[in-house]
Amino acid sequence: MSTNIAIIGATGAVGSEFIKVIEHLKFEFDELYLVASARSAGQMIVNNLGNFVVQDIETFDFSTITYAFFTAGGSVSKEWAEKAVNAGATVIDNTSAFRMDPLVPLIIPEVNLSSYKQEKLIANPNCSTIQIVRALKPIDELFGLDKVIISTYQAASGAGNAGIEELHASMLNENESENENAAETSTVFSRPLAHNVIPQIDKFLDNDFTFEEEKVRFESRKILAAKNLFITCTAVRIPVFIGHSAAVYVETIEDIDLEKLSVSFAEIPDIELSNTASSFPTPRLIASQDKVYIGRMRKEPNTPKGVWLWVVANNLWVGAALNAVRIAQQLQKNTL
Amino acid sequence: MSTNIAIIGATGAVGSEFIKVIEHLKFEFDELYLVASARSAGQMIVNNLGNFVVQDIETFDFSTITYAFFTAGGSVSKEWAEKAVNAGATVIDNTSAFRMDPLVPLIIPEVNLSSYKQEKLIANPNCSTIQIVRALKPIDELFGLDKVIISTYQAASGAGNAGIEELHASMLNENESENENAAETSTVFSRPLAHNVIPQIDKFLDNDFTFEEEKVRFESRKILAAKNLFITCTAVRIPVFIGHSAAVYVETIEDIDLEKLSVSFAEIPDIELSNTASSFPTPRLIASQDKVYIGRMRKEPNTPKGVWLWVVANNLWVGAALNAVRIAQQLQKNTL
Repeated sequence: MSTNIAIIGATGAVGSEFIKVIEHLKFEFDELYLVASARSAGQMIVNNLGNFVVQDIETFDFSTITYAFFTAGGSVSKEWAEKAVNAGATVIDNTSAFRMDPLVPLIIPEVNLSSYKQEKLIANPNCSTIQIVRALKPIDELFGLDKVIISTYQAASGAGNAGIEELHASMLNENESENENAAETSTVFSRPLAHNVIPQIDKFLDNDFTFEEEKVRFESRKILAAKNLFITCTAVRIPVFIGHSAAVYVETIEDIDLEKLSVSFAEIPDIELSNTASSFPTPRLIASQDKVYIGRMRKEPNTPKGVWLWVVANNLWVGAALNAVRIAQQLQKNTL
Repeated sequence: MSTNIAIIGATGAVGSEFIKVIEHLKFEFDELYLVASARSAGQMIVNNLGNFVVQDIETFDFSTITYAFFTAGGSVSKEWAEKAVNAGATVIDNTSAFRMDPLVPLIIPEVNLSSYKQEKLIANPNCSTIQIVRALKPIDELFGLDKVIISTYQAASGAGNAGIEELHASMLNENESENENAAETSTVFSRPLAHNVIPQIDKFLDNDFTFEEEKVRFESRKILAAKNLFITCTAVRIPVFIGHSAAVYVETIEDIDLEKLSVSFAEIPDIELSNTASSFPTPRLIASQDKVYIGRMRKEPNTPKGVWLWVVANNLWVGAALNAVRIAQQLQKNTL
């Protein structure tokens, strides 16, 4: 049986990373199609996998596709994902469109692949959720999660190419940069991001949390199968191009044994735990795009059940393309 | 009685802000002396308060000084503060040298002035401690603090002029900026700070917390007179020049009434609470140097005893010079 892949939203920040991840993971396929809206259709894209003419989603034939990766925004997924499924494709959706749908599995292959029941539409979690939950899973298994309090430090690329460009333009606006109510135009972010931090990612909800913060709460609960887990988050945009970080404080049901936890992290191939307090990871200097880096692991002196972690990962890879392609690889493996 | 002031460390990032704060607060004095190490002595400084020749601390006569503000680093304070006190000056020390000394009061005028008992040596708290404790105090009074979990977003200027300069140089190093192990020299910060976040401020202690994180813990407990308060922190340096931010999660002993808390914040002249979720403060755009800005105040849905706050202030003013000069103003008022 041949394996044909389509990337919907291939010209975006995450879309272009999908191509690199497919190559990096040596994902075996027969045909690859790059698909986008009419605006980008016809564009020529040349990369290590070949030469591609971007296809218009309006006229694209999903009936020959095995795996369709959707990463063109929630509205595109809402309009096209089910059509692709009806045409015979398995859709792995990187948007928030279906994540909280009880009929749609929300999968991190290293964490909850067992909850996959042959559905044809699978949701890829939010970028910050993925790296946080991958760090939480071993803690949950060893000691049981009781309470999780998170503050994030999220890169501009989480808002796509437009986010990267707006940060870059804002950086160049040097003269207006220091503590002034700059006349700078911000459209992607709600404030100028250069020389600044913005405690808002995505829209505000009725409870005054942002949608991003609630994604972390509700997606984590769904993935960890812990619907009442006490987990809460403040999500903050920072002037970094690539790489999300999170300061994660965890309280557990049983007392924490840091040595046991270190051993558990060491057994996971794509998690790298810092050996010493001072060897912590930072977003700019992470060595590999496909690992989750954990540092600053330390016991909270106030309680034997408290631990802090500092979790860093490439948001475009670990938090998006890599997770999605690994889902497809697992499906492929099970099909063969 | 005449009031003579000396600023020790007058040529540093905070030292120069002291001069502006003295003018801003209309602090009444007769003579002002700018003092520094031999390296800066003899330098001419011209500002709105007059023309000054920087005095050498080695030969400076503290016997004519009423209030000496020390902001030249812990080692200078350790060597000279007691000499200044013995010569007759009241010392307000902006370093960490004496903060945890049980004989030295640690004062935020708006919070614990009542704990001042005529001591001649007074410690000014750490920059991030000040803004956090000012936000915590009304919560403590209304509902009682049970647990406080903090992640900070701290500006480069917290490391003085050298910190500002290193961030600026790092910003200009554009070609090496994105996720590369740049050959850039970092001496003030342990990693390049541009396009990055660094979860380390000050040195690491035996329990793998940093000294900055433990300052927040132990200074907050001392100021709030709550020696067993459950308070913990991850302190992170971000690529912002001026303005510290903190994501503060608080659990209280009694249920939280957000309206009562809003009223309480509104009654404090120098605290500005955002009216709506989307009108949160950011470090680059805070309108005034002498206020503590609080936004993103929201109840935690997991418990009636949980609340999040986002606290922003100018670290050089609110977190340093302003607090120190206000201490002196209070002393002056009580003396008159």
